[in-house]
Amino acid sequence: MLTDYQLLRIPGPTPIPPSVERAMMKPMIGHRGNETSQMIQTIKPKLKKVFGTAQDVMMITGSGTSGLEAAIVNVVHPGDKVLVVATGVFGNRFTKICEAYQINVEEFAVEYGKALDPEAIRAHVQANPDIKAVFSTYCETSTGVLNPVGELAQAVHAVSEALVIIDGVSCMGGVETKMDEWGLDVVVTGSQKAFMLPAGLNFIAASERAWKVIEANPQKGFYLNLTKYRDNIAKDTTPFTPALSLLFGLEQVLENFEKEGLENVYARHQLMRDMTRAAFKALDLPLFTSDQDGSPTVTSVKPTDFDAEAFRKEIKSSFNLSVAGGQAEMKGQIFRVGHMGYCAPTDVLQYLGAMEIALIKVGKNIKLGAGVAAAQQVYLEGAK
Amino acid sequence: MLTDYQLLRIPGPTPIPPSVERAMMKPMIGHRGNETSQMIQTIKPKLKKVFGTAQDVMMITGSGTSGLEAAIVNVVHPGDKVLVVATGVFGNRFTKICEAYQINVEEFAVEYGKALDPEAIRAHVQANPDIKAVFSTYCETSTGVLNPVGELAQAVHAVSEALVIIDGVSCMGGVETKMDEWGLDVVVTGSQKAFMLPAGLNFIAASERAWKVIEANPQKGFYLNLTKYRDNIAKDTTPFTPALSLLFGLEQVLENFEKEGLENVYARHQLMRDMTRAAFKALDLPLFTSDQDGSPTVTSVKPTDFDAEAFRKEIKSSFNLSVAGGQAEMKGQIFRVGHMGYCAPTDVLQYLGAMEIALIKVGKNIKLGAGVAAAQQVYLEGAK
Repeated sequence: MLTDYQLLRIPGPTPIPPSVERAMMKPMIGHRGNETSQMIQTIKPKLKKVFGTAQDVMMITGSGTSGLEAAIVNVVHPGDKVLVVATGVFGNRFTKICEAYQINVEEFAVEYGKALDPEAIRAHVQANPDIKAVFSTYCETSTGVLNPVGELAQAVHAVSEALVIIDGVSCMGGVETKMDEWGLDVVVTGSQKAFMLPAGLNFIAASERAWKVIEANPQKGFYLNLTKYRDNIAKDTTPFTPALSLLFGLEQVLENFEKEGLENVYARHQLMRDMTRAAFKALDLPLFTSDQDGSPTVTSVKPTDFDAEAFRKEIKSSFNLSVAGGQAEMKGQIFRVGHMGYCAPTDVLQYLGAMEIALIKVGKNIKLGAGVAAAQQVYLEGAK
Repeated sequence: MLTDYQLLRIPGPTPIPPSVERAMMKPMIGHRGNETSQMIQTIKPKLKKVFGTAQDVMMITGSGTSGLEAAIVNVVHPGDKVLVVATGVFGNRFTKICEAYQINVEEFAVEYGKALDPEAIRAHVQANPDIKAVFSTYCETSTGVLNPVGELAQAVHAVSEALVIIDGVSCMGGVETKMDEWGLDVVVTGSQKAFMLPAGLNFIAASERAWKVIEANPQKGFYLNLTKYRDNIAKDTTPFTPALSLLFGLEQVLENFEKEGLENVYARHQLMRDMTRAAFKALDLPLFTSDQDGSPTVTSVKPTDFDAEAFRKEIKSSFNLSVAGGQAEMKGQIFRVGHMGYCAPTDVLQYLGAMEIALIKVGKNIKLGAGVAAAQQVYLEGAK
């Protein structure tokens, strides 16, 4: 196989654009100097647009999980009752962190592959007025579901004082988020998905309502104490040493978003979802999510007539094309294709073309070109 | 459109692999020091394999044209009679350089889109014993023809003392070359095609027979005097300052070739040609070359029912996919797709998928997916 060639279509990390790679190679500068402050000044308003908020978006150096932990420890206390809407593995991540802090977690389990139902949660929260916070993923990476987090927030706020806390890691930057308009209280996302950066940086914002709770919280830890991040970002700096290369890259990503136009970025992701879904239907590949619930950033398939893992091995060994397998209970049952960040409709045509060959090889009876043609048709209709 | 995204499928320059980009970013070193000598030592035997020669392959810093000029001024004198086999624009380049040196050029014109006929040239050379050298392109980039240069050399040598001088710029590294076995006398190629590097470096080798002629030549110019390059490469150095970054990149390219295996590199190019040709046939796109003459590195189409330039504009504006147009007399008449160097079968599926959409847009009545399916079928048969 062609040396040094890969097609990375897992739901994160995603490929990094050359301009961002170049930006990340800039020489180090002092992180307490003017140049860094100016860079943060440039970044701030652009990050707000991605979040759809007037609040400053804070940046925490760490894995996505540190961002989720920050979203928890700042707003709830040991003994507090919270509701975690579990639509997959990453909803469960919230539960595990809460348990580590002796938080009284109740899980609202949703069948894997389905989005949450805001009305059901509204009823549950209304019946349990002691719930202090409701946690949900925006895109559930492990299933490919996009949860209606705006409707969730409106449903919860209509009947409760509970804060609504959203993990937007695997879709923000690829899917529109209107934090303020929707009434989301804490929103956190990471750098390695639709933001097209390596992992290592979290972005997090809190509503006015959330800040009141955070300020009243006596035990917020040290590294993840959001008031430090808020006070520092207000002065165009960070409380702890930032991952400078990632900031260089972020500055470039946000400039690239602006060049393309955020509305076009979101439309591109919708188009890639629609192309992928149409192709999989044409190839008789059972989608793990409904058209309504499917995320613009990741699509899952639960095959019935071939082995998902054999298929993944085949595309990897023949084309160095990587897609993800199932996690936890879904292990070996599904495969998941990431179509986000530095990914264009022509990349969708490319992975579909390769997958069709691999489907034949793993014994599925398909018509070559049928998936590609369905995706092309969607492109032509969408782009008309 | 996705910012900072492009699909470069012109017949050179070609995309550069990430490992090669990284190699080219190494810090400068002294070009007369040990490190450079060691690098040249590493490069030498690997370049010989690509050329299929026991001779040292010399490296000239310059555009491809400087390599062609070196191939001329070292072996022929003002007033000498030479035969240029003109199968396209780059055959003509030989003529223009010869004319600048008052060399008596005779052109052997071959219909564009067709390969040269060794027997016809044998007859011509036999009838013109004063011909000192025969020039030909290996792959004629402007038409997508691969000339049978081995047969040409055998035909010429059977009846004449003329040297056979080959421009291998747009295929070597993607197509097997057996310089010694075939009896080629001077072979020159450049860095920006199947070698996957930026332009700026030429590789050139001469046969024992050619060296006798070169040594006897009293006027070889200065910068392009090949004896200087020969004497220096024997000592693992260069006569003039080398383009060091390109050497760093070349070292990596040759290592990548070795990892893949040169026979696999060549098989990959054959496969990409066959996939592309099968797809174009399925889409009713008239190929400009026959199956026998078509190059593994570039494929040309001469459309009859749509405008080649409108099609090129469409794929560029919709997908940032670049293919080349026609040159000289073929301007506006053909388009040319490069499938060489850092290009995989999945890239072929990708450009075909994009082209099918564009064909619909420029008004050609095709069945979506039909070209992709034909290419996939070739892949499955070739890879079985």
